[in-house]
Amino acid sequence: MTRMEKGNLFAHIPPNFTNEILETLLATKYLKLERIISAGHATARGEWYNQNFDEWVILLKGSACLFFDGETEPIELQPGDYLHIPAHAKHRVEWTDSEQKTVWLALHFTQD
Amino acid sequence: MTRMEKGNLFAHIPPNFTNEILETLLATKYLKLERIISAGHATARGEWYNQNFDEWVILLKGSACLFFDGETEPIELQPGDYLHIPAHAKHRVEWTDSEQKTVWLALHFTQD
Repeated sequence: MTRMEKGNLFAHIPPNFTNEILETLLATKYLKLERIISAGHATARGEWYNQNFDEWVILLKGSACLFFDGETEPIELQPGDYLHIPAHAKHRVEWTDSEQKTVWLALHFTQD
Repeated sequence: MTRMEKGNLFAHIPPNFTNEILETLLATKYLKLERIISAGHATARGEWYNQNFDEWVILLKGSACLFFDGETEPIELQPGDYLHIPAHAKHRVEWTDSEQKTVWLALHFTQD
């Protein structure tokens, strides 16, 4: 049997970076699991995510705020908060923590 | 569009419970995402997990120790540590934290 290797979700975070960091932790035909690291990033003004896959996302460090098209209130996320974002649920990241890095775990999947 | 509902992985943890708590957060034909809460639980002596699905698991609170059949060293897990456990990789939970609850996020999936 191959030796089990552990990783740590909070390790190897660069002190400075320009773009959000996306790293694939796991990928199969049906899913992709990603670590995302934000540092004050937000979706550009007027832009929306409109994804053709479902996403289950959990914020594990830092904080952030999402806004969904058609909603009146934004959704603020603190460590441990998770959300299922159905495919084509248009949304934006309004802000991410400016004081510390924000670490997300995002699971992309298809329903069938 | 339906209203987005957030949950929190560290919320609603009962102060006392006998068996490990397993809650399905998400399930499709190809995956199951579970929250597991342990409180000093371990795999019974002489018993092994031998799962017919792959598992990607991350420990997010507390601590634990896994042992894989055929390995010489156990693998201790601290918050943020994750591991991919292939199907049929026989393993045991040697111990989980006795001082605090241990919270895991476990993704069960099939490769095809």
